Amino acid sequence: MSLLVTGSIGIDTVRTPYGVSENCLGGSAVYFSMAASFFCAVRLIGVIGSDCPFDLAQVFAGRDVDLTGLEVRAQSKTFRWAGSYHDNMNSRTTDNLELNVLAEAPPSVPAEYKDSEFVFLANTTPALQLQLLEQIQAPIFVAADTMDCWIAEKLDDLKILLKKINCLMVNDAEARMLTDEHNLIKAVEAILGMGPGVVIIKKGESGSLMCSADGDKFILPAYPAAEVKDPTGAGDSFAGALMGYLAQKGKTDFESLKTAIAYGTVAASFTIADFSLAGLTSINKTDIDNRLETLRKLTQF
Amino acid sequence: MSLLVTGSIGIDTVRTPYGVSENCLGGSAVYFSMAASFFCAVRLIGVIGSDCPFDLAQVFAGRDVDLTGLEVRAQSKTFRWAGSYHDNMNSRTTDNLELNVLAEAPPSVPAEYKDSEFVFLANTTPALQLQLLEQIQAPIFVAADTMDCWIAEKLDDLKILLKKINCLMVNDAEARMLTDEHNLIKAVEAILGMGPGVVIIKKGESGSLMCSADGDKFILPAYPAAEVKDPTGAGDSFAGALMGYLAQKGKTDFESLKTAIAYGTVAASFTIADFSLAGLTSINKTDIDNRLETLRKLTQF
Repeated sequence: MSLLVTGSIGIDTVRTPYGVSENCLGGSAVYFSMAASFFCAVRLIGVIGSDCPFDLAQVFAGRDVDLTGLEVRAQSKTFRWAGSYHDNMNSRTTDNLELNVLAEAPPSVPAEYKDSEFVFLANTTPALQLQLLEQIQAPIFVAADTMDCWIAEKLDDLKILLKKINCLMVNDAEARMLTDEHNLIKAVEAILGMGPGVVIIKKGESGSLMCSADGDKFILPAYPAAEVKDPTGAGDSFAGALMGYLAQKGKTDFESLKTAIAYGTVAASFTIADFSLAGLTSINKTDIDNRLETLRKLTQF
Repeated sequence: MSLLVTGSIGIDTVRTPYGVSENCLGGSAVYFSMAASFFCAVRLIGVIGSDCPFDLAQVFAGRDVDLTGLEVRAQSKTFRWAGSYHDNMNSRTTDNLELNVLAEAPPSVPAEYKDSEFVFLANTTPALQLQLLEQIQAPIFVAADTMDCWIAEKLDDLKILLKKINCLMVNDAEARMLTDEHNLIKAVEAILGMGPGVVIIKKGESGSLMCSADGDKFILPAYPAAEVKDPTGAGDSFAGALMGYLAQKGKTDFESLKTAIAYGTVAASFTIADFSLAGLTSINKTDIDNRLETLRKLTQF
């Protein structure tokens, strides 16, 4: 089935204890699309400025990523982010943030994308996520990400969004902040009460937790990676493989969601093994399937 | 097979956001024995003072816990610990620590315990762990716990101990401290290089990780508990059920160790649901087996 992602396309500069990657390609829509493309065709919506040094058609060459929704604005500059990861790789400092084109009017949804069935609204203002979602005619399964600043500053909009999506994917700190509840299980139950039928909590190196409004639960550890070079994009790769698997299967039952989370976990483990997109572009679907089986073996008793 | 534990017996005062439990029974050997007693007979070695208000024979009534190794010193005072858990329940402050009898000469190993096959050396000075271990004739499987202060102050003794045990169980911070390696997989590999054939990392609400010198790995999330009232004793309950299961089976192959970790995870989840030992004394083996199956369902995909 069709899969649409709306999110950022950025120029990143990343510093980790393993090195520096300057002016590399990043952004939620890019990581998402790359991971999802192992499973199904992806429709991308995003906007860049004329300064963007990357040819996205080249970046996604050989992958079924539809760039009809990519808008290049001649008078604008591309979103830029620079960040430094600390020694433990679990926390980071933003060194520079230039919203640029992301602060302008949002991209529009192309007519040929309006029948999209699976939709991922990557992190941006909840109002913008709503505006993009309203342009999709009859989505089957809509998932969204959000972040601390929107929970703090745009909570009313976010609560409207939560009533219109099927799945919220946030990290543990965001779930706690959104619900003012430290215990994660209670936090998830509170979020389920706000609208989405499924809540997925990303806990970084501690794995993930999924709960449904029907009372189903699933917990999965992260893949035990000996090499973590750059955690940037892990969450978006997780979402990409997860949504890609679901769209490929055309299913959203809880069993399918469990396998989708496992694929998301595997994709994230490849992303963090190298800088920028190198961890994802150097593998194929067989590598992903093999690691899924390894993860299954690692967690079964 | 026979299971021996040497560890502390204490009088605890615990403050958590859920309340205060003053002068309750605690100590590593107590939590361990209670959890292990669901699986097999337990031989306990520990020492208390004449001030101890608890009748351990009564505490363990109906359970197969041998108290031959319990020493009561008329002139001594019992170990006391008071601690406060912070709002997130993952960190705590020690409010009071009185080693008392733990600072005196260690208890001896009774003659009838010397043939013990499975041995758990709960956290104390590595020199004392070694001294106790040397009194056991031909143990089959020896596991030990340790903590930050011994890693910092008694590293030479600890390294000797590591060459004489089969399994080290520590938390993630201790593993990193012992090896000066942040990545947990690398830290575990470094510890395996120090002697033990199996290393188990306890990561609190993030679950556990086990690696063997043969290259086998296992990761398991914590049981998703909506109610955490008092985390005290979680690690010792984990160790107790784990070792109890192994001793009951009389096996230490990796598959058995995986199931043992799952049982440890379940025991810990019951312990933290209430203050002191109440979480463990209010359940039976069927409750434990049922939750093991729930945990299996929660983690399989």
